[in-house]
Amino acid sequence: MIIARVVGSAVSTIKVDRLRGAKLLVLRQATPGDEVFGDHFVAVDAVGAGEGELVLVARGSAGRHTPLTEGQPVDAVIMAILDSLEIEGSISFRKS
Amino acid sequence: MIIARVVGSAVSTIKVDRLRGAKLLVLRQATPGDEVFGDHFVAVDAVGAGEGELVLVARGSAGRHTPLTEGQPVDAVIMAILDSLEIEGSISFRKS
Amino acid sequence: MIIARVVGSAVSTIKVDRLRGAKLLVLRQATPGDEVFGDHFVAVDAVGAGEGELVLVARGSAGRHTPLTEGQPVDAVIMAILDSLEIEGSISFRKS
Amino acid sequence: MIIARVVGSAVSTIKVDRLRGAKLLVLRQATPGDEVFGDHFVAVDAVGAGEGELVLVARGSAGRHTPLTEGQPVDAVIMAILDSLEIEGSISFRKS
Amino acid sequence: MIIARVVGSAVSTIKVDRLRGAKLLVLRQATPGDEVFGDHFVAVDAVGAGEGELVLVARGSAGRHTPLTEGQPVDAVIMAILDSLEIEGSISFRKS
Repeated sequence: MIIARVVGSAVSTIKVDRLRGAKLLVLRQATPGDEVFGDHFVAVDAVGAGEGELVLVARGSAGRHTPLTEGQPVDAVIMAILDSLEIEGSISFRKS
Repeated sequence: MIIARVVGSAVSTIKVDRLRGAKLLVLRQATPGDEVFGDHFVAVDAVGAGEGELVLVARGSAGRHTPLTEGQPVDAVIMAILDSLEIEGSISFRKS
Repeated sequence: MIIARVVGSAVSTIKVDRLRGAKLLVLRQATPGDEVFGDHFVAVDAVGAGEGELVLVARGSAGRHTPLTEGQPVDAVIMAILDSLEIEGSISFRKS
Repeated sequence: MIIARVVGSAVSTIKVDRLRGAKLLVLRQATPGDEVFGDHFVAVDAVGAGEGELVLVARGSAGRHTPLTEGQPVDAVIMAILDSLEIEGSISFRKS
Repeated sequence: MIIARVVGSAVSTIKVDRLRGAKLLVLRQATPGDEVFGDHFVAVDAVGAGEGELVLVARGSAGRHTPLTEGQPVDAVIMAILDSLEIEGSISFRKS
């Protein structure tokens, strides 16, 4: 999984039917210290994540292994909201 | 999913039979501000996208989870046409 | 799918049994203007492609969704030979 | 599989139900000489790995082929702890 | 598939049970002229490859489509040993 921060959202009226109701969030990969980097990408939210939150994103077929996304044409899902990260004995991130 | 813009199309007479009728579009990845970058690639269109439109592309096995592409040897599908994108509280893209 | 040009072929006597008879071609990714770039890679040919042809390659599990490659340990298949590509209203490639 | 070193851990209260009990470790890719490089990422631990250990990580759908991770929305699993690596006839790493 | 050369091996006592007996080899990607490049990675050997040999590696779910690796948490398998490669009409590699 990658560490990523929710930075926005996407709106789409014309989409594959199976996606009705899916919440599409825009993210960027993040360091364990919550610094974003890399290209923006879109994932389906399976956990009620909000903008600014640091989350874990599972990509590939993993994206369809949640009750919300089963059978959907999605390749990325937010499957956890991070409370904290510990790197080499120090807390690098704690949710405020 | 990646944000991408449709920039062209591909024509192929000799292809795997299961692909008969598939619309093959050429795309490039795009920023939330609709600036394209990176290599051209090809995806099957599952939503009636047109040239110039900003879309979402699902890659990998997700590409086969639409009624149109089930069982096809495809690894990328356009599964949503974007109306708008909002990044950090501002609209970065709105379909014209 | 990626746009690629067939640049050679691979011969292997010792291989997983399920691959008997598979035609293994060497390719490089190509621009819509048929300029190759990037690393050489190998794909199974499902459409009778020949050296020098511009083709589409599906990667990942898509590689096993042709009658020829079902159940094989392959992660890339040539599933279409390109006749032409049109980018932003101009023909960038036409098969000669 | 990639060679990686466990460098930390992640805590998440709000996650997809199927992930309850999963141990989420933070890793970085490593050379055969145990030098880390590249972005931090997160994998589920299926073998009882500890911080500082050099391990193998399987990514993609492989991540769900352990008794612990079956059906979970995960795309990376630690499936082996390395005892040693031998490169071109020399031991490049031995677990201390 | 990628062209790769076997450069070493990995030993692991603590691993997912399904991996018992799997031969874990260390590889690097190679050019058609047998020059290695890129990061070291690990694949399961399904064909009896030896150190120094040029092979083909299938990645992703393809890694589980051999009799040896079915159901295993592996994302890379050596599925062919190369006898020769021909690039643009010339032999770039021949097994000695």
